[in-house]
Formats: sequence, C-alpha cells, structure tokens
Amino acid sequence: MRIGVSCLSMDMRSHRIDREGIDGALKIIASVPIITASYWRLMNNQTIIDPHPQLGHAANYLYMLTGNEPSVEDVKTLEIYLNTVTEHGLNASTFAARVVMSTRSDFVSAVTAAIGAMKGILHGGAPGPVLDMLMDMKESGDIEGYLRHKFESRERLMGFGHRVYQVKDPRATLLSQISADVWKRRDDKAFWDLAIDVETTALRLLKEYKPNRRIYTNVEYYTALVLHGLGMPSDLFTSTFTVSRVVGWLAHCFEQLELDRIIRPSSVYTGPSEQKWCPIDKR
Amino acid sequence: MRIGVSCLSMDMRSHRIDREGIDGALKIIASVPIITASYWRLMNNQTIIDPHPQLGHAANYLYMLTGNEPSVEDVKTLEIYLNTVTEHGLNASTFAARVVMSTRSDFVSAVTAAIGAMKGILHGGAPGPVLDMLMDMKESGDIEGYLRHKFESRERLMGFGHRVYQVKDPRATLLSQISADVWKRRDDKAFWDLAIDVETTALRLLKEYKPNRRIYTNVEYYTALVLHGLGMPSDLFTSTFTVSRVVGWLAHCFEQLELDRIIRPSSVYTGPSEQKWCPIDKR
Repeated sequence: MRIGVSCLSMDMRSHRIDREGIDGALKIIASVPIITASYWRLMNNQTIIDPHPQLGHAANYLYMLTGNEPSVEDVKTLEIYLNTVTEHGLNASTFAARVVMSTRSDFVSAVTAAIGAMKGILHGGAPGPVLDMLMDMKESGDIEGYLRHKFESRERLMGFGHRVYQVKDPRATLLSQISADVWKRRDDKAFWDLAIDVETTALRLLKEYKPNRRIYTNVEYYTALVLHGLGMPSDLFTSTFTVSRVVGWLAHCFEQLELDRIIRPSSVYTGPSEQKWCPIDKR
Repeated sequence: MRIGVSCLSMDMRSHRIDREGIDGALKIIASVPIITASYWRLMNNQTIIDPHPQLGHAANYLYMLTGNEPSVEDVKTLEIYLNTVTEHGLNASTFAARVVMSTRSDFVSAVTAAIGAMKGILHGGAPGPVLDMLMDMKESGDIEGYLRHKFESRERLMGFGHRVYQVKDPRATLLSQISADVWKRRDDKAFWDLAIDVETTALRLLKEYKPNRRIYTNVEYYTALVLHGLGMPSDLFTSTFTVSRVVGWLAHCFEQLELDRIIRPSSVYTGPSEQKWCPIDKR
C-alpha cells in the first residue's frame, strides 16, 4: 500500500531523523485507517477487507470501510480533508503526545495518549455530535425552535465557535467549500439543505442571543458535512480525524525528541494549609 | 479485595465527585497490581494467581507476584513506598493524564496516557536502569573506575540529581530509611553493601567532577534498593511505581474534571518563513 509520505517529509528532514524512526512513524500512520476500517466492519458483523495494493492512503481507507473502490472525486475530497486537519499546533491531543514523548517514551505510547485526548467531546469528539444534532433537528422539524431552546437553556451549541479562533478559522473556508462539492455529487440533497438551513438560522440567532461575540461556524460543523457526504456515520468521525491528525502528532514527536526536554510544569498548591491529620476511622 | 481508599478520599471529597466516578477510579486502582502481577507471571510461564480476599492492596500485589503471603514487615515497607510516591505535582505522567482528561475524555484514556509517559527513561523508567547499573558495577568489581568512566565520558549517571529538586528531595530521606529497614531483614546483605559503597563513591566523585552543583542521591536510587529488597527484579520497577502513582493520576483527573477547561497551550512558529511550495516530484 502506498501511504502519504509527502505531508511528513518537511518536518522530518529539518530534524535529521533516522530511517528507523521514519519507518516506525509511517507504519503507525498506515495502521490507523486499517485498524479503524477493520474494527468498524467487525462491529457491524462484516468481514475485514485487506488494503488494496493499487490504491493510495485516502482511497484505501474508503475502500476498506465499504469494499467499493471510491470515485476519484470522493478520494480528492477526503484527501483535502485529511491534509487540512493534519496539524494544528499544540491542540490537546498533540500536546498529550509531546508530553509522553518528552520522557523519551515511544511513538506508540505517544499516539495512544493522543487518541485518548482526541476522543474527548471538547476535542476530536465534536463532529459526531454535530451530525447527531442535525439529525435531531431534522426529526423535530422545527430548527429555529430547537436552536432557541439551546440558547435559552444555555446549552452548548455544537459546531459553532472555537477555543482559539476569535476570527473565522481559515480551515473552515476550505472545508465549507469541499462539503459543498461533495454534496453536489449526491443525488439526495435533503441533508445538505437541512445543514445550510441550520447554519443560516444558527448564525442569525447567535447575533440575537450573543450580539457582542463573534462566533462563526467551526471546522467541526463542516467536518460533519464532509464526512457524512462521503457516506460516513457519526461514529466514524473521530477515528477519521485521527487518520489525519496522527501525521501531525508524529511530526511533533520528532520535534520533541530533537528538543529532548521533559515537559513537567511546576504547580502551586492553593488549597487549605495547616491541616491536621485525622486517623481514617475518625473521619 | 480491600483497596487503599484512604489516600484518595481527601481529593475526592473536596470536589464533590459522584459515587460512580469514585467506583470507576477505585476499579482502575485495584486493576493495576492485578494486571501487573498477571502479566509478569504469564511472561515467566507461571499461572496467574487470583487476589487473596483476606489481604490488603499492597500485600495482595506481593502475593499475586509470588504466590506467597508476604511478611507484615515487607507489606509495611511496600505500603510506605506506595504512599510516598503516589503524588508529586505535575510530573510528566500526571500532566499527560490531565491533558487527556481536559478534553472530557475518560479515566481509562487518561491513565493509559500517563502509563505511556511513565515508561520513558526520563520518568518512571529510571529506577530499573539504576539496579542494572549496580549489577554492572558488581560484575566489573571496580566501582570507582566505572563511575570515573561515566563522568569522564559525560554519560548520564542514573540515581543522582533531579529535574525539580536542587535541595535533597524530601521523599529520598524516607525511602533511604525503608531501604535500610528492608535490607536489615535480608540474610544476604551483599547487594546492600554494594549499594552503599556505590552511593558513597558517587557522592565523593560528584564533588570532584561537579564541585559547583549540589547533586544528591535521588528517589530512583532508593526505589531500586527498596523494590529489589522486596525481591523484585528491575523489570517490575516501573509497573510498581505505576501501582502507586495511578492513585495520584486519578486524583488529578477529578480535579481536572472539576476545572473543566481544555489544556491547549498556544505555540509560536519559529521556523523559516516565505518558503516556496515545491511539487513532490521536484524535491
């Protein structure tokens, strides 16, 4: 199987990493779609599909999930998605990988830690609930009512706003574009129409409920549209994000190894002092 | 099996964690010695020993490793070791656990990340090589020559110095004391004599080679003496540290959940700018 070496080469070259390290990293990158697709098919009582020796990294992921060779256009869409989200500074999963790597642990441990951070709802777990929310709204039939209830009960609205970006996330523009592309190719556009309707209504209501904050549609929202447009259910979103982000994690691992300094922040105790010890049977 | 609830209760009570969370954490804490002992015995072609319903947490760990009920004194030594190293601020493994937890991931993911950090040689992986080094010196028969070679070739000397402590680590005093206690109970004191000889020689040579730095015997050194005194080979040291530290990790996880803010440091790009993109086949 051919795998996407291109996006790795820059970081690696500048750090003079040895061949063995690169091979280990590429093996992990190649493993993630295989593990994801195999696990997914087993969960759905289907047989595992081996990687196709003639297909590239992104194409193989779709192929191993469905058993069908994907269209050139769908492969392109997935490749753009994977390249867009592969690296994003010291996000929680990347930072977890660097903390683990900083003890001179190994790539598998670092990537495993990152996956653990990824699954959290405040990080890689976000796009799945966006799709679930859209499906809920479709069922309720009352988009504006659903959204107003969210705002009035001060619940978190998935798919809008970002911890870092106060301006529009530059990745969102690109993902928005490919989500439109992929849905143009689909016969049934009901989901796309719903998604646009929800976005328009949400942005209008955000101006009404939070007039002083600039909140934009975020990458999680468009990710849900892109991946669902490629035929994926919400349960596959976090893993598909991982198929991409594992490349960024490993590039950071190489940087951390080169830096070779343990990440060990100091902390200041702010709890009560002068506490008296009390035997456990007296508590 | 009874498990050590006492050391957890303080952190938990102050954060009003629910019963389900506490039960989940206790289950993980109880699992670590069981998993370690079972894996160790399988690795050595021995059958797994079930936990003993009459024994406590520390006693059970020794029992499941060997199949023999440990002496009251050895259990006490192990309990003091476990309590001494169970928490130590934002060390790399604890910090990894908090980063993972900060995305609202789960305890198992946080602890798995921490274990990945723990295994690194700059963190929990240190005491094992201390014992290996002592065994090397025993074999070479020339302690001073071995140490002088280390200093002169600027190799890292395991068991001395600490990233945080410039004064003597307060835990080292306690571990030094229990290491002396456990070896007093052993018939063959050859290893203890060697360890004292190495420590004395190393501290003398440190004054000679690094006269301006205050470097003390660290907890890894005494940990090696304590755990080897309890009959453990170096391969079990990191896991035994984990048997203890998992309690601290989970206490931090509860704190992080209460805080509920994603750990996502910002970063500043310091690499070259104005780079031109070059197609991959032209590189």
